[in-house]
Amino acid sequence: MFSSPESRLDQLDQVSRHIEAHQEEFVQTLKDWVAVESDSVQPLPRLRQEICRMMDMSADKLRRLGATVDTVDMGAQQLPDGQSLPIPPIILAELGNDPQKPTVCFYGHLDVQPAAKEDGWLTEPYTLTEVDGKLYGRGATDNKGPVLAWINAVSAFVALEQDLPVNVKFFLEGMEEAGSIALEGVLRREKDRFFSSVDHIVISDNLWLSRRKPALTYGTRGNSYFTVEVKCRDQDFHSGTFGGILHEPMADLVALLGSLVDSSGQILVPGIYDSVSPVTEEERAMYSAIDLDLGEYRNSTQVERFLFDTKEAVLMHLWRYPSLSIHGIEGAFDEAGAKTVIPGQVVGKFSIRLVPHMNASTVEKQVKRHLEDVFSRRNSSNRMAVSMVLGIAPWVADIKDNQYVAARRAIRTVFGTEPDMIRDGSTIPVAKIFQDVLQKSVMMFPLGAVDDGEHSQNEKINRWNYIEGSKVFAAFFLELATLHE
Amino acid sequence: MFSSPESRLDQLDQVSRHIEAHQEEFVQTLKDWVAVESDSVQPLPRLRQEICRMMDMSADKLRRLGATVDTVDMGAQQLPDGQSLPIPPIILAELGNDPQKPTVCFYGHLDVQPAAKEDGWLTEPYTLTEVDGKLYGRGATDNKGPVLAWINAVSAFVALEQDLPVNVKFFLEGMEEAGSIALEGVLRREKDRFFSSVDHIVISDNLWLSRRKPALTYGTRGNSYFTVEVKCRDQDFHSGTFGGILHEPMADLVALLGSLVDSSGQILVPGIYDSVSPVTEEERAMYSAIDLDLGEYRNSTQVERFLFDTKEAVLMHLWRYPSLSIHGIEGAFDEAGAKTVIPGQVVGKFSIRLVPHMNASTVEKQVKRHLEDVFSRRNSSNRMAVSMVLGIAPWVADIKDNQYVAARRAIRTVFGTEPDMIRDGSTIPVAKIFQDVLQKSVMMFPLGAVDDGEHSQNEKINRWNYIEGSKVFAAFFLELATLHE
Repeated sequence: MFSSPESRLDQLDQVSRHIEAHQEEFVQTLKDWVAVESDSVQPLPRLRQEICRMMDMSADKLRRLGATVDTVDMGAQQLPDGQSLPIPPIILAELGNDPQKPTVCFYGHLDVQPAAKEDGWLTEPYTLTEVDGKLYGRGATDNKGPVLAWINAVSAFVALEQDLPVNVKFFLEGMEEAGSIALEGVLRREKDRFFSSVDHIVISDNLWLSRRKPALTYGTRGNSYFTVEVKCRDQDFHSGTFGGILHEPMADLVALLGSLVDSSGQILVPGIYDSVSPVTEEERAMYSAIDLDLGEYRNSTQVERFLFDTKEAVLMHLWRYPSLSIHGIEGAFDEAGAKTVIPGQVVGKFSIRLVPHMNASTVEKQVKRHLEDVFSRRNSSNRMAVSMVLGIAPWVADIKDNQYVAARRAIRTVFGTEPDMIRDGSTIPVAKIFQDVLQKSVMMFPLGAVDDGEHSQNEKINRWNYIEGSKVFAAFFLELATLHE
Repeated sequence: MFSSPESRLDQLDQVSRHIEAHQEEFVQTLKDWVAVESDSVQPLPRLRQEICRMMDMSADKLRRLGATVDTVDMGAQQLPDGQSLPIPPIILAELGNDPQKPTVCFYGHLDVQPAAKEDGWLTEPYTLTEVDGKLYGRGATDNKGPVLAWINAVSAFVALEQDLPVNVKFFLEGMEEAGSIALEGVLRREKDRFFSSVDHIVISDNLWLSRRKPALTYGTRGNSYFTVEVKCRDQDFHSGTFGGILHEPMADLVALLGSLVDSSGQILVPGIYDSVSPVTEEERAMYSAIDLDLGEYRNSTQVERFLFDTKEAVLMHLWRYPSLSIHGIEGAFDEAGAKTVIPGQVVGKFSIRLVPHMNASTVEKQVKRHLEDVFSRRNSSNRMAVSMVLGIAPWVADIKDNQYVAARRAIRTVFGTEPDMIRDGSTIPVAKIFQDVLQKSVMMFPLGAVDDGEHSQNEKINRWNYIEGSKVFAAFFLELATLHE
């Protein structure tokens, strides 16, 4: 049953030709799926029914592939207004259970963000429309296209009556855009059942960093979110009647917030960089290889100048160095106009994005000590209280893990290039939930280009990304099987 | 016609005994006036009718004193919701026009703040109720009591058929608590008519600094209100996706605001103290004489510790030194919760209370130069814009002016003590309007005690303050006449 590299290449060649030959059919299926207004954001019974219909369509599709499909009833959601809405079922499906093969589980979602023509769409959002090789439609790239690409890859092996190189599982939900409200419970319940045989988890719910160069995502930053409250008394003061004799809470708070980060973006909390893992030569090379035009990035983000002038420095400061952002102040005057108030108590909010190997509770201690130092030097009569209200660990995958190696090889074979090895500066909730609950290797394997406009008007997936993406998933199965042998 | 000091004292003695003898009648009139729900804050037709009725009652009262009364129709007010409400008439009245006598105009208002028993009143707010010498009722001290005290003083001379020592004018309005919307127009129109012969303007619409010691108010601070905007782009950023590579507008703004004032309350804008008039020995003595228990003040304001430990320093920093307060930030995250936003543009708001002889436009230049310096040192790619949105000059009266001398003498005679010579840390709009439009000597001559609770539940005026206040106004007429001779 072990195949030689030659026969793998041969297999991939057949599968790729099959995908190529059936691409109109694959595009038609995507069109059928996009036509379902599976919007989970607007809490309307009609839309929830559409999501349920979407889940049923996907279950049918998987059954026709030969998969065993379990449709997990998720019950209902009580809204604050008393309304009760059905939560669309979660689809657990599996195809193959050969203990000799690796088992890879694909996570995807079939719900979408709201869309309406009058929001600025150039085409009907729920009618997949091709213009210059771009398939426009809500959900085309987020996430119906990638889910179908995975199914297309599996279906090619099935249609060709080739042995599927891996055991495949599917975990499909319909509430991702509404916060995946039922996901974590199902993961916990299925951890030792559905997931017990799973070796790898693949999520294809983000984008490349560029328009043409594929990418693999191997890490996210964590986050530690702080509040710092400065209080004189409950009520506010009038600045005419009290200005000049008070230790004003806003003056204290502004000094505290001003002590956190300098104008070059350096965090000023002592010890904060101590555990940040040093940059290796290998990493440096990986960052250099990434396809990013800084000028174009500046234009597209409408930022005149970044803190750093090189691609490498910009990306490292987004992905592998901590950053500190001041979000705002609660309790001060925040409206338009000119109110002469001295706020009596104010709460500053800031957060530090964490990177390996920073530890949230160490950061908490460092931040508290620092702010207490700054505050005590002010000799203020106000009271200060610092809290870390959120502490999410960073995630970084081992890119030497089989599934990363397999994915890189598959990308090299199908796209003829090394992927950009990228991270995400923010926490990706779904990756984090899988990571935390299942403790398995997770890989983010995006198919869409940077300009796909997920969540925006005129969302699209390029035909090329969709079809080559189907091939690259097939190649990935073959490479993973080879590495497993 | 010139009277000797002895006859003045004799006259005052008679007038005082008359007031004393008729005090129940005076309290009854106050009760009648408090019974009118002349609330100008709630824009309801019924309440506006009540204010109009109140203005008519006062006009009748003045006519019965022998005054010439002009009821100035103010037309109607268009509310944003399309409703049209009558603006109560302004009463212009005069009694006496002897060119040999000084002419003093009294400003007062007969509208009140809203009040309802269920807000926490211990008595019916529109039923004047005496408890332990305190006359509780809405408007008792703000401002119906003081208006009646002035009328009582005049009426005593009239009842005793004594020659009124001064020409008296009245300017009474019914929209003060709603922002005196029609006042300025009338002042401008009447500047060279009704006000042409006026020598002194007396306003009795504030409070003493203590419970038992009378006060005269001779100044207010001005105010220069600034906005400082820092902008990267119109939209906000996500701190995960952009944190670490941006010159974040909040970091710039916090640094700018933090450069304005130090922890001891000292303003750090270069040159800001250059024009502040130096403290004279005379002033120092005046501050020392003021009745203020700092411990009690701390307790009543619920402030643990002020920036200064002595009564003199506290009062000087409230009244005769500039202060800088940071009010808040518009455009940042200001709600409860933990939002990971990097605001794209933020507007900081702060103001500097101005004192003699600071000039708002000089302060504007100093603040702009300072913030530009601080900002340029940050080498930020954001844009900064500083605006002074409000520049109100400080006011200080010449306390050697006849009316101040007369009032101090009157207080000494009636209360047996020197008044506290006080200022107000904030702008008093009505004093400022009179000052700006008429350019005449204005004096604030309060009758109410510090604990009268204007605008609060259980507003009151002490019977003692009301009756002795009527006497002190009578004494003031006599002293003013003497000084005029």
